Amino acid sequence: MSTTTQTATPKTVIDTIRTLSMDGVQAANSGHPGTPMALAPVAFQVWTKAMQYDPANPLWPNRDRFVLSCGHASMLLYSVLHLAGVREVDSHGNVGSGPSITLDNLKNFRQLHSPCAGHPEFGEAAGIETTTGPLGQGISNSVGMALAGKWLGANYNRPGFELFDFNTYALCGDGDVMEGVACEAASLAGHLQLSNLCWIYDDNKITIEGHTDLAFSEDVGKRFEGLGWNVIKVGDANDLDALAGALDGFKSCDDKPTLIIVRSVIGYGSPNKANTHGAHGAPLGDDEIKLTKEAYGWPTDEKFLVPEGVTEYFGETVGARGAEASSAWQQKFEAYSKEFAEEAKQLTAMLAGELPDGWDAGLEEFPADAKGLATRASSGKVLNMIAPNLPWLVGGSADLAPSTLTLIDGEGHFGADNYGGRNLHFGIREHGMAAALNGMALCGLRPYGATFFVFTDYLRPSMRLSSLMHQPVTYVLTHDSIGLGEDGPTHQPVEHLAACRAIPGLYVFRPGDANEVAQSYRAALQLDRNPSAMVLSRQGVPTLDRTECAPAAGVAKGAYVLSDCEGLPDAILIGTGTELQLCIKAQAELTAAGVKTRVVSMPCMELFEDQLPEYQEQVLPRACRVRVACEAGIRQGWDKYIGADGHFVGMSSFGASAPAGQLFEHFKITADQIVSCAQVAVRGLEN
Amino acid sequence: MSTTTQTATPKTVIDTIRTLSMDGVQAANSGHPGTPMALAPVAFQVWTKAMQYDPANPLWPNRDRFVLSCGHASMLLYSVLHLAGVREVDSHGNVGSGPSITLDNLKNFRQLHSPCAGHPEFGEAAGIETTTGPLGQGISNSVGMALAGKWLGANYNRPGFELFDFNTYALCGDGDVMEGVACEAASLAGHLQLSNLCWIYDDNKITIEGHTDLAFSEDVGKRFEGLGWNVIKVGDANDLDALAGALDGFKSCDDKPTLIIVRSVIGYGSPNKANTHGAHGAPLGDDEIKLTKEAYGWPTDEKFLVPEGVTEYFGETVGARGAEASSAWQQKFEAYSKEFAEEAKQLTAMLAGELPDGWDAGLEEFPADAKGLATRASSGKVLNMIAPNLPWLVGGSADLAPSTLTLIDGEGHFGADNYGGRNLHFGIREHGMAAALNGMALCGLRPYGATFFVFTDYLRPSMRLSSLMHQPVTYVLTHDSIGLGEDGPTHQPVEHLAACRAIPGLYVFRPGDANEVAQSYRAALQLDRNPSAMVLSRQGVPTLDRTECAPAAGVAKGAYVLSDCEGLPDAILIGTGTELQLCIKAQAELTAAGVKTRVVSMPCMELFEDQLPEYQEQVLPRACRVRVACEAGIRQGWDKYIGADGHFVGMSSFGASAPAGQLFEHFKITADQIVSCAQVAVRGLEN
Repeated sequence: MSTTTQTATPKTVIDTIRTLSMDGVQAANSGHPGTPMALAPVAFQVWTKAMQYDPANPLWPNRDRFVLSCGHASMLLYSVLHLAGVREVDSHGNVGSGPSITLDNLKNFRQLHSPCAGHPEFGEAAGIETTTGPLGQGISNSVGMALAGKWLGANYNRPGFELFDFNTYALCGDGDVMEGVACEAASLAGHLQLSNLCWIYDDNKITIEGHTDLAFSEDVGKRFEGLGWNVIKVGDANDLDALAGALDGFKSCDDKPTLIIVRSVIGYGSPNKANTHGAHGAPLGDDEIKLTKEAYGWPTDEKFLVPEGVTEYFGETVGARGAEASSAWQQKFEAYSKEFAEEAKQLTAMLAGELPDGWDAGLEEFPADAKGLATRASSGKVLNMIAPNLPWLVGGSADLAPSTLTLIDGEGHFGADNYGGRNLHFGIREHGMAAALNGMALCGLRPYGATFFVFTDYLRPSMRLSSLMHQPVTYVLTHDSIGLGEDGPTHQPVEHLAACRAIPGLYVFRPGDANEVAQSYRAALQLDRNPSAMVLSRQGVPTLDRTECAPAAGVAKGAYVLSDCEGLPDAILIGTGTELQLCIKAQAELTAAGVKTRVVSMPCMELFEDQLPEYQEQVLPRACRVRVACEAGIRQGWDKYIGADGHFVGMSSFGASAPAGQLFEHFKITADQIVSCAQVAVRGLEN
Repeated sequence: MSTTTQTATPKTVIDTIRTLSMDGVQAANSGHPGTPMALAPVAFQVWTKAMQYDPANPLWPNRDRFVLSCGHASMLLYSVLHLAGVREVDSHGNVGSGPSITLDNLKNFRQLHSPCAGHPEFGEAAGIETTTGPLGQGISNSVGMALAGKWLGANYNRPGFELFDFNTYALCGDGDVMEGVACEAASLAGHLQLSNLCWIYDDNKITIEGHTDLAFSEDVGKRFEGLGWNVIKVGDANDLDALAGALDGFKSCDDKPTLIIVRSVIGYGSPNKANTHGAHGAPLGDDEIKLTKEAYGWPTDEKFLVPEGVTEYFGETVGARGAEASSAWQQKFEAYSKEFAEEAKQLTAMLAGELPDGWDAGLEEFPADAKGLATRASSGKVLNMIAPNLPWLVGGSADLAPSTLTLIDGEGHFGADNYGGRNLHFGIREHGMAAALNGMALCGLRPYGATFFVFTDYLRPSMRLSSLMHQPVTYVLTHDSIGLGEDGPTHQPVEHLAACRAIPGLYVFRPGDANEVAQSYRAALQLDRNPSAMVLSRQGVPTLDRTECAPAAGVAKGAYVLSDCEGLPDAILIGTGTELQLCIKAQAELTAAGVKTRVVSMPCMELFEDQLPEYQEQVLPRACRVRVACEAGIRQGWDKYIGADGHFVGMSSFGASAPAGQLFEHFKITADQIVSCAQVAVRGLEN
């Protein structure tokens, strides 16, 4: 038994988005109603007219991506996901029968355990393509998505099998456009001619402090033309025909990304708050909501009303279109799997977030070598050992490839003339790079990005989001201490190990020799829900003789006993990275002086914290209280391991400009200093 | 007895700059020769023809500022400072008789204790106006300098007394122009119509990875026109007439900042390395240097040669012009001092880096109040108590004034129509804001900038430079924990206290009530060589009854006993910010349960570290090993104070979106949790 349902009009659909958003914010007594009210027609137009998206299959690999970069307008996204009937997906990627966002979820906007968080959080509900909220991030992620789309197409499409040609749409506001990261990402997108990327800029002339005249008077369109974009203007966000024309203009431009500038009115329809910053970040209030609903011709006493025909409207547009397209894609993929079995296998693994069989088969052991090599150099070799067996390991650097040694040999350079290249050139745009890496990871690639370690400060907001979104991005960070020498304090990381370790969920590796580098990559790439930071030296370190000390496989546990004494040690020396060799030298001296000494290598504190307490106790027995840690960074974070009687040999100030050897002497990061600290501590306990 | 010296030709002067730079890099066997060789004519033209600068008086307040934003080209700056005869200045600001940079200093480029560091370091030698090297920072600082110039003029010039009308010149490269921070700063400068600002962009088409075509193909001129700049192109860096015309074009534009785009050849003159990235970051090599000198018509075997007449050229141009101008200024200032005694007194204090007498006279005590107020709210009141007596306290927020509560009441808004305003509107440009604050501080202002605490991630590179340069910038950072509630994890700082405390020299204050806020500002503003971070809550906290606990003056020592027990405590509870009240509640419960409990308030770890060990022991006696710290951030950094037997009540993951009260319960940051940790620890010691 079914009843015929009259499909709603566009105005009704749009006003449903608006009123759901207003009601959600009001129910939470917190949130941002004004932008959803302004942009509802834009979201309507993109979803119902432009996007290829199957609500019943929200992980369809070739779906168009929709990014709400102005994340504070989250109710706009939640309302659309609800109305479009986007299905739930479980943590294994299986599509369920229920909706991703229920009406109850909307009513519980901004409440604990609701998927409708204050800002869209990736992983909370299907259809949220990326976490947004920190301004500029979403649009910059979208550049990585568009880049990934081009890369996937170039590498996996075959004649007759256009598996990947999706578009990425991102809605953004003044804040997004003002943030530097977005300018970096836009410049990169323009350079790369990402014609599959469309940003829609909500030009509402209002920010939190008031009218944009206060601080923002540039000609955004002209700036973006300078950045190499196709710029289209829409004079009124409510003009659906103009929006349709602009979206057509995007689709017909094949050599540039498109910026559609849409003039809108924040809080559209609200008699007293429209076009004021009063509509931005606070509920409208019950009275004003009634007046606004009245202005829309809406039942004023209804809350969370979804009139008949609204979900049907989505079903008959994006739903029908998407179902057809995704089912055609699925058939195509099945045929493809027969003709291109290896490629299909790769895609299946990639899209499931798995590593291919034998991905680490190329890892070779580095022979012991007293001279050794810089860990950035062993990193370069390790990347090249892994790359052939992990085809979707794709990355590059922020204009430092000759220094970070991150090029994959024999592979092409990604660019408008070669979208299949695996070597990326991000330009001197660290932040834009990191944000793009997030977008690439969200499309299934295993991306890496390289810069000098000190410049993690530049990309930190995106690195945090890698972690918050559980994206396995690998950050390759070289020149990791005063050991870089002459470039001086502006280039010498001091606080950066502590600062990176502070980010929840980020695994920070600081390997001590070439074999630890190899094992660090092995461990990092197996982290499928965490980003990692490879912290690497400019200067050489010996490759340890593993017949004389424990195998580097210990890296997998974060810290391990590298070189031990008989019985309970009198002193434990803990080292990381280039200072590990100092601990070994100090051990020899201490042993000669009759101090039973253990050396613990601790390349990754986070992995060590993941181990069972028994293992931790085995490596760092409580009974041995004399502990000296040595690391060419600050002490913060080490007290936990060295305890109240411990000593730390490292930095307590910014560095200086001089040859590296002199700096280690100057700042007293030496084996002698470790020896002397250990002896002081041993004597202290004896007294 | 004197000999007549023939003044050198421009070409000789320019080639002297070039060869000194090449020789310096070669002697160091490290550095960047190519850009100094390319830009020598530009530096020559700016210094000898355009700048108002008195080498004998390098701190002359109205001097034109010269910023080498492409800091890797540091030898260019050092060579010019040497040749121009810029005098040394001691740490008290007294000009000495010797040169700021000697020829020996140039020969010791990049060596320990040489003022000629790898990148220009503010404070190492007079004439270095700001620390540059991290790309984008110098040009962004220059926006703050230009802004300060306008502000000083508007506030202190009087009819007939144009004390401040200086210009700021900044040289920059592709890296600077690609960095997002620079786009933010440029957008702000365009908006503010800073016509006293001139950026000279070295368009050399070469970056570290190779040709800019790899990653950078935008139309920079068009972008800057969009940003509201006056754009002028010079086709050849060696065309002195064209450079002169461009600089005239800058001076004659009175409503926009100017960008001069200069096409140059990196490593100009080097037969084999010019126009290649081989000339960028490595010495040319002795052979190539000889060939290059030959190409210049230079004695090929001479090193560090300064031909006769070169220093004289500077003396007769910038030297003579600057001496006249600075001496005229000095006379004018003396007359001004008579007519405008109060203003002159203010300027004298400001430029000496001193606070005016009575600057803190307006600070009033907040009465005890169980309901209390958010620390962002008390911060707003305190700012307004201080502002009237500290006229050069100038600041604003990155579009969050209604949330950060940082407006100075009754004062105007800085803008092109009101350069005297004290309330700045930086727009949604946190990084550009912080970089501008550094430039303002370098001109003598006491600037503050506000944003949400989580967004310190966006401005961290500039915050680090505030500290490295010893600039007393105040960062006002509100919404400091999960206590901000519904906005969720993207907006909730978790790791940011640890991350900020990690920066050497940055003083991080997290006051626990209104009176601690007042005392935190008192302490922070007295730090004349350190930046400070005021970390403040969105949500209310009680104003403690100081008749029942220790006075807030204890803030000056970083940590103090807020509420004590009789004799040695069984347990010490340490709290900061909004969690201090939880410690007090827990103390009451513990006391009732027979546990002698002390509460220590620790609003500033860095100040506490500055105290004598005796005081530290007094506050945190070693004999009491039961310690519980409570802070709504991560544990990192706390182990030092709580010791091996300590407990920490705080966060160990990202936050969530929900009302604040529910979040504190959810993440177990409660008085009950503190009590239970203390009891576990006390029992643990008893067993």
